[in-house]
Amino acid sequence: MAAPSPTAGELRHAKRIVVKLGSAVVTRGDECGLALGRLASIVEQVAMLQNQGREMMIVTSGAVAFGKQRLRHEILLSQSVRQALHSGQNQLKDMSLPVLEARACAAAGQSGLMALYEAMFTQYSTCTAQILVTNLDFHDDQKRQNLNSTLQELLRMNIVPIINTNDAVVPPPEPNSDLQGVNVISIKDNDSLAARLAVEMKADLLIALSDVEGLYDSPPGTDDAKLIDIFYPGDQQSITYGTKSRVGIGGMEAKVKAALWALQGGTSVVIANGTHPKVTGHVITDIVEGKKLGTFFSEIKPAGPTVEQQTEMARNSGRTLASLLPDQRSEIICHLAELLTEKKDEILAANKMDMDLAVNAGHLSPAMQKRLSLSPAKLNSLAIGLRQIAVAAQDSVGQVLRRTRVAHNLELEQITVPIGVLLVIFEARPDCLPQVSALAIASGNALLLKGGKEAANTNRVLHELTQEALSLHGVKEAVQLVSTREEVEDLCRLDKIIDLIIPRGSSQLVKDIQRAAKGIPVLGHSEGICHVYVDAEASIDKVIKIVRDSKCDYPAACNAMETLLIHRDILRTPLFDQIIDMLRTERVKIHAGPRFASYLTFSPSEAKSLRTEYGDLECCMEVVDTMQDAVDHIHKYGSSHTDVIITENEETAEQFLHQLDSACVFWNASSRFADGYRFGLGAEVGISTARIHARGPVGLEGLLTTKWVLRGDGHTAADFSEHGTMKYLHENLPVGQPLAGQRDSN
Amino acid sequence: MAAPSPTAGELRHAKRIVVKLGSAVVTRGDECGLALGRLASIVEQVAMLQNQGREMMIVTSGAVAFGKQRLRHEILLSQSVRQALHSGQNQLKDMSLPVLEARACAAAGQSGLMALYEAMFTQYSTCTAQILVTNLDFHDDQKRQNLNSTLQELLRMNIVPIINTNDAVVPPPEPNSDLQGVNVISIKDNDSLAARLAVEMKADLLIALSDVEGLYDSPPGTDDAKLIDIFYPGDQQSITYGTKSRVGIGGMEAKVKAALWALQGGTSVVIANGTHPKVTGHVITDIVEGKKLGTFFSEIKPAGPTVEQQTEMARNSGRTLASLLPDQRSEIICHLAELLTEKKDEILAANKMDMDLAVNAGHLSPAMQKRLSLSPAKLNSLAIGLRQIAVAAQDSVGQVLRRTRVAHNLELEQITVPIGVLLVIFEARPDCLPQVSALAIASGNALLLKGGKEAANTNRVLHELTQEALSLHGVKEAVQLVSTREEVEDLCRLDKIIDLIIPRGSSQLVKDIQRAAKGIPVLGHSEGICHVYVDAEASIDKVIKIVRDSKCDYPAACNAMETLLIHRDILRTPLFDQIIDMLRTERVKIHAGPRFASYLTFSPSEAKSLRTEYGDLECCMEVVDTMQDAVDHIHKYGSSHTDVIITENEETAEQFLHQLDSACVFWNASSRFADGYRFGLGAEVGISTARIHARGPVGLEGLLTTKWVLRGDGHTAADFSEHGTMKYLHENLPVGQPLAGQRDSN
Repeated sequence: MAAPSPTAGELRHAKRIVVKLGSAVVTRGDECGLALGRLASIVEQVAMLQNQGREMMIVTSGAVAFGKQRLRHEILLSQSVRQALHSGQNQLKDMSLPVLEARACAAAGQSGLMALYEAMFTQYSTCTAQILVTNLDFHDDQKRQNLNSTLQELLRMNIVPIINTNDAVVPPPEPNSDLQGVNVISIKDNDSLAARLAVEMKADLLIALSDVEGLYDSPPGTDDAKLIDIFYPGDQQSITYGTKSRVGIGGMEAKVKAALWALQGGTSVVIANGTHPKVTGHVITDIVEGKKLGTFFSEIKPAGPTVEQQTEMARNSGRTLASLLPDQRSEIICHLAELLTEKKDEILAANKMDMDLAVNAGHLSPAMQKRLSLSPAKLNSLAIGLRQIAVAAQDSVGQVLRRTRVAHNLELEQITVPIGVLLVIFEARPDCLPQVSALAIASGNALLLKGGKEAANTNRVLHELTQEALSLHGVKEAVQLVSTREEVEDLCRLDKIIDLIIPRGSSQLVKDIQRAAKGIPVLGHSEGICHVYVDAEASIDKVIKIVRDSKCDYPAACNAMETLLIHRDILRTPLFDQIIDMLRTERVKIHAGPRFASYLTFSPSEAKSLRTEYGDLECCMEVVDTMQDAVDHIHKYGSSHTDVIITENEETAEQFLHQLDSACVFWNASSRFADGYRFGLGAEVGISTARIHARGPVGLEGLLTTKWVLRGDGHTAADFSEHGTMKYLHENLPVGQPLAGQRDSN
Repeated sequence: MAAPSPTAGELRHAKRIVVKLGSAVVTRGDECGLALGRLASIVEQVAMLQNQGREMMIVTSGAVAFGKQRLRHEILLSQSVRQALHSGQNQLKDMSLPVLEARACAAAGQSGLMALYEAMFTQYSTCTAQILVTNLDFHDDQKRQNLNSTLQELLRMNIVPIINTNDAVVPPPEPNSDLQGVNVISIKDNDSLAARLAVEMKADLLIALSDVEGLYDSPPGTDDAKLIDIFYPGDQQSITYGTKSRVGIGGMEAKVKAALWALQGGTSVVIANGTHPKVTGHVITDIVEGKKLGTFFSEIKPAGPTVEQQTEMARNSGRTLASLLPDQRSEIICHLAELLTEKKDEILAANKMDMDLAVNAGHLSPAMQKRLSLSPAKLNSLAIGLRQIAVAAQDSVGQVLRRTRVAHNLELEQITVPIGVLLVIFEARPDCLPQVSALAIASGNALLLKGGKEAANTNRVLHELTQEALSLHGVKEAVQLVSTREEVEDLCRLDKIIDLIIPRGSSQLVKDIQRAAKGIPVLGHSEGICHVYVDAEASIDKVIKIVRDSKCDYPAACNAMETLLIHRDILRTPLFDQIIDMLRTERVKIHAGPRFASYLTFSPSEAKSLRTEYGDLECCMEVVDTMQDAVDHIHKYGSSHTDVIITENEETAEQFLHQLDSACVFWNASSRFADGYRFGLGAEVGISTARIHARGPVGLEGLLTTKWVLRGDGHTAADFSEHGTMKYLHENLPVGQPLAGQRDSN
């Protein structure tokens, strides 16, 4: 009968939206007074959506609370207020008040509540209208018809109807009437009123805000309770009803019933918490934008698993992957390398689809084309890289780093183990996918991949091949491709199930993820402000070679030079002229630091900041008095990535290398060497400027952590106490011996 | 003339407070309409403070904005609105409006604005009164007197006066009148009005909210601009005036002048940003609680440096510490050990003061007494521990972990370096201070210490001795003791200057810090839910010994057993009875897991959650079918700290050790061995359950990171390109050779 409800992704197209505000949202905790801040931000969001051309309706609670506050105030005033006010400050709070009848409060509060809504909406140039309804209005066809056409007319006039039950005259709820049936729904509460109205008005979406997060699969608070992201009517059985409360918090069952009724009538429903101080400011707009909030009731079940399910699958399969032999992990990677060659036609066909789509969408810059497109040659070198990773995989998981005989028959080993579940986020570079997958497989980690949507088809094929390779040893699910519809922000919130995030892409991507990933460590760096310092005793040849290479070899790289520091004594020497000539020839634009500018009669434009990462044929140039000054400058303005000294004085060089606090410090070598491959680390996971875990170019060991294995024979701590029989030996043992199964038999 | 203004710590005692709301706070960005959400939360805070018994006054902007919106609305309605409304949705926004004169808007808006304030304050049972003032009201003594007594009367009646300039009648500002002088201040804007009123009314505090963070020492946005936390009138010179804007953002200078004027009159002032969505909800209450927000104008300069200055001093001195020889760092630590013995009378006297204060304050539980009190014996064993750390210091910083010949004459080294600046937060255990200081010194790290205030005197003496020891090699400032008044939360926000936080204390302390420390890594663990699994093939003797030791040796320790998992086959065997008997004898309270409970006729009370850390003589007991079930249970409910299997079957044991994903996995040994000392790591920094950086018991190496040192001879990346002359060698070199100064001379 009704058109099917939209899916989560389609919510942004919802035109007609009912927002239901539960009393927990509208009122403060103490139930006598409105939560004005929340109300104001809700009005702001509704007005914004209305001004976007949507048709918004509000079903609101709050009249009783407003009325209570008002009546209380009136009563106080009439109780010879002046006296009360004069005698003490908290008198107003302490005075006993008569118990106020809810219907009287509702009557008294309704007008004030409406006035408040109107005043607030006026701030956004939005008109409102008040509608009070009762149960009977829906039973009587004529009345329903009238209500319908009034609302239609208001919506057509760009007015936001604000609907409430007529609490002053409404009859008591009928306990046995039910939501079942399409045309009959009794208005017991604002949940059912909102559902009834949404269906009557053919709304696309009903957002029901209360103080619960949404629907849980078991009573909230129990060990395993999980919030259900998307609820399909067919799944109703999967909810465990607790012994004490039914579906968690009281009233939830009624909300679910109302939601299902609305869904059946063609309106999508989201039940979410509207009381979180941090999210209230955008809960409604976020829902409309399709972000994961609360529980979304949908009729259409998507084909694939949710990202939480994917993570769970990846973790389980990853545990098996971690317990394979190193040879088996290598085999998987080699098989993937073969598949890249074998199935190259399939891969290239998918890649062509992506390229065509990008061309048609009109946003295929040359740089992006270079990143997005694959070729047989690219696939070949990708396969070669994978085979190198397969070799590295032999010495990664299960290495014994330390062995100690703690006491007689008590031996300790520290061994390398995978980190757990990695999330790798990459942009429009499909070749990242097999590379990163191989790194994860080599280190025994489970992997969630999130690629740019421009490469969706290519990524899909490459991921299928990866899973085919993983199937070789029964660990197909260890690498998961996350649907392109998942927001990066949503993924970054999964701090309970993801152990490490590795962004592969622009510095902006890294910054965004570092900001979003509260609680999950992020491996990488957002800035590469690399310095080259030319000492007074530098060799001309080396300076020209190294400065050119550091800046011009690949200016967009994070290890390219951004600031050139020169010793004061070099100014106005032939070396200085040669540097400037070389930079001119290479078309490098120079920005002058303040001291440099002060030395010149005609200086280049002054650098806006000494902390700029130009990422192009541009650099800052600044003068320093001594090597020590250069170190101080780099500590102050650098990003601890890579910094270089050019000098022939070994003592100066060693001082620089020793004092400088960057991940990479170089003497007479280009900053461009800061790279895992060039360092001989084999596979490169990324470059980290963090100060804990891996630092600088990170090889496979950056994807590993350790665990401690202790093998005893009934040993207890008490055995080693003052009166115990045992003594600690703490002998270091050689680590070369096999991992397990060899114990001292005496 | 005026009483001195209160210091930041005394703000919570401020009774009379003026809150000034700039137009940026009250209005939306587009300047036609109020920011209702912000306004509502400000009203909420003011009402809250008023209800605490304070006397609140508001100086507000916003009448013009309110009036503009209102007049616009009126004009639209009069322009044959119906027609406009019928013809299209966005018509209202698009219609051209006459330019509205500000004074007319103010007149039209004033009443509406006041009505809004009144409606909002009514929600918190708070009365308001409107006061409109002009410049002249302050020049005329009689008028000033009238204003004063009106306001006094309102405050006495517990009414919040809401003050605004009478914009409809106010004369144009006089450009040459100034804030100088005590009795004359021209009301050019709400900043000077608020300052004038605050002084007139002898307010304790003026909170001026606008859209700037506060006062910067140089124009905001420049490389070195820093927000000034506390501004003393004498410091006025230290502000660098930019060439383009004076003291940063326009209008700031006037704000500063007004603030200084108020300060001179005896009112403290805080200038802060009232437009941040995340902090607006508590900016006023936070300021009153003495939290660091914006710039606080104070007359009294505290004796010591700010925590930012301390961090800077520590970092600089720490760099020198890091460049000392290992022997020198050892010497410092040994000297500190000597001082602990030499100056023990001084230390114990300070400790006695702390103990006496705690006794007098009446909160000295036996457990706390044990933690807080020092004795000659405690100091002795502390000194012994320090000498062990001094030995460990020999092999920490500057170790070569890897050496690679990248190419001819291009050599790479990976060496250990300190992490940077550590923040260690500890509770009422003064012995932590020298221990942690020694660890930091040994690893060449700068250190900020924040101890519990109960041990303030002891900590002060111990810190003085630490600095005395550091002076031996000129690095006195490398270890700083942060004043007890600094909030832990404030310290956790210093993510730009602190590299690692190490909490030493209760699991609640760790949890609080993990929550607060956004952006700074925290080393440690908040939960230790350790399991002991008794396999079907376990030896009775070992089970009894290990279970008893794991639970009872020290039940409050993080490595104590919390859940005992037993194989199903053991139920109703003599072994089972013996376990239960032993636990009864040891007075361990048992909580039954759901499966265990289902096996028993009369079960102990059911465990509330399988994830409980009892930390006492209590544990959960649960039944599993197989070793694999035990692993699954631990993965699901554990905290990856330490888990134990007891079995005589080596294959089962090795499977358990291999599959389980915890930091420590033990076979036939008590969980209590998870400890740095017992592991033979020497000094213990803590136990980490994180998955990156150090894991499990952490020794000194947890306080180290690495850097890469590359020594070349003019090498560039281009030399190694397809057409280059060089080839990568990537030969591993032995790491035993000395660090520097030895280069291949061919």
